[in-house]
Amino acid sequence: MINKLVEKIKKTNAPIVVGLDPMLSYVPEHIQKKAYAEYGETLEGAAEAIWQFNKAIVDSTYDLIPAVKPQIAMYEQFGILGLAAFKKTVDYCHEKDLVVIGDVKRGDIGSTSAAYAVGHLGKVQVGSKQYAGFDEDFATVNPYLGSDGIKPFVDVCKEEKKGLFILVKTSNPSSGEFQDRLIDGRPLYEYVGEKVAEWGADCMGDSYSYIGAVVGATYPEVGKVLRKVMPKSFILVPGYGAQGGKGADLVHYFNEDGLGAIVNSSRGIIAAYKKEEYAKFGAENFADASRQAVLDMIEDIDGALKAAK
Amino acid sequence: MINKLVEKIKKTNAPIVVGLDPMLSYVPEHIQKKAYAEYGETLEGAAEAIWQFNKAIVDSTYDLIPAVKPQIAMYEQFGILGLAAFKKTVDYCHEKDLVVIGDVKRGDIGSTSAAYAVGHLGKVQVGSKQYAGFDEDFATVNPYLGSDGIKPFVDVCKEEKKGLFILVKTSNPSSGEFQDRLIDGRPLYEYVGEKVAEWGADCMGDSYSYIGAVVGATYPEVGKVLRKVMPKSFILVPGYGAQGGKGADLVHYFNEDGLGAIVNSSRGIIAAYKKEEYAKFGAENFADASRQAVLDMIEDIDGALKAAK
Repeated sequence: MINKLVEKIKKTNAPIVVGLDPMLSYVPEHIQKKAYAEYGETLEGAAEAIWQFNKAIVDSTYDLIPAVKPQIAMYEQFGILGLAAFKKTVDYCHEKDLVVIGDVKRGDIGSTSAAYAVGHLGKVQVGSKQYAGFDEDFATVNPYLGSDGIKPFVDVCKEEKKGLFILVKTSNPSSGEFQDRLIDGRPLYEYVGEKVAEWGADCMGDSYSYIGAVVGATYPEVGKVLRKVMPKSFILVPGYGAQGGKGADLVHYFNEDGLGAIVNSSRGIIAAYKKEEYAKFGAENFADASRQAVLDMIEDIDGALKAAK
Repeated sequence: MINKLVEKIKKTNAPIVVGLDPMLSYVPEHIQKKAYAEYGETLEGAAEAIWQFNKAIVDSTYDLIPAVKPQIAMYEQFGILGLAAFKKTVDYCHEKDLVVIGDVKRGDIGSTSAAYAVGHLGKVQVGSKQYAGFDEDFATVNPYLGSDGIKPFVDVCKEEKKGLFILVKTSNPSSGEFQDRLIDGRPLYEYVGEKVAEWGADCMGDSYSYIGAVVGATYPEVGKVLRKVMPKSFILVPGYGAQGGKGADLVHYFNEDGLGAIVNSSRGIIAAYKKEEYAKFGAENFADASRQAVLDMIEDIDGALKAAK
């Protein structure tokens, strides 16, 4: 799957991923109204609204981008019906040949991590049959529990040729509380980065490992260091746009081959129609605003990468 | 909810929680067969099998125990239908007046953590209506992302009078890879423990905070230290039984009031019928074996606490 991600990035010239994090407040009123008219103001109505919202955005951007990253929390808040909309979104993105990064931030130990891995990336055995539960291509994983938590995910990735992005340095203001603590003069995130490189070493695709890392756009100096610590790991970069990261900050997250990073934008794309810049599209044409925001983001990052050469 | 947990522990004299982690391999064949006869070897069949298994164990133990801890990964591996069995289990345990600790180990930042918190502990707004998604009483949470990740959970806990158990030192062999790293001479888990005490200070129940911690039974010396670092936090203790922890190891996880800790056993109770000790019950009477295992665990811990006085 890492090979497919690399190929698609080359083909689209777009090292970006659209975060499908559909808060109800992002969903235009006409879509919410229609869903509630059909299903009432119920969890089913909410699930229908976010699914229709997602579908329109995917339809209007899929030819420009290699991947999407649905944030499962935004579905999970609506319980079972929300998660059914998550699954529907994953399946629809696969129909459109997009790589799907499940932003699930799971992590446990042993058989429990194995169960998460099976549920999101693999197949579960039921008697003599096998079934895929959610069937994303990549999953984000939390490393706090150490190798016991990560290895079961790695095993499933090897079997299914899927991948992980492991949290190393997150984009939020308080990420330093634990991640930046100095151990023998070096921050914790460097040790986690070293482990990511180690876990990834024995599951290499053609040029990058199946096992990648999450490093926030909001800490460009850290990105520069971690790029070197994990030369074969793809870096998933949240925090672009709404959280303050800009294309010019991100050049050091990439390797000299122009690859090695994929930058996420969620709100900046899916709720573009709410920004002054794209207000001219109007709420009715929110998906066109999203397409324009994708084009602008590609140009911003491409320009920054060219300027840095 | 922390007050209810304390009351129920006092009433049952059982500071224990039964981990409802129903791997299919634990579910006796007669239950699996019946479920597959009705629904086929499908995800629906698997979900029915684990639900019937859970129900029998809850029916045979609920009068002895204050709480259960369903491990969501074991349900999530079966996709949407598995999660429906999780929800059914949560609701059934509430009918039996048990405190439900959702072992979900979620954790993200800002609005995403808020979405998880709402989905598991709170109510989500849909138009003019509000709905509870999964509706557990406590949730386990991963601290790697710092305060930005925890605060949204704390806010929902305050509103709903529910609680958290934040991972501090986990029970697995590799938990030390990051959690034990020394920062100015003290391990990371102590810093996390201090934060738990800080986060918990402004949401106190009668004698304990809504915000507790997870500290594994397999590191009793660490438990002793962390008990002092977080005097007002309840400690959820995994790793008893199958992972090697014994009652005698656990006395220092408790405060002098005999409270402050709740010890989990999953496999040791729900799959007791598979152990030599309880084999006499037979697979048909697996739930009776579970009841006996609960009684033995209560005696082990009660004996250890009395011996330590």
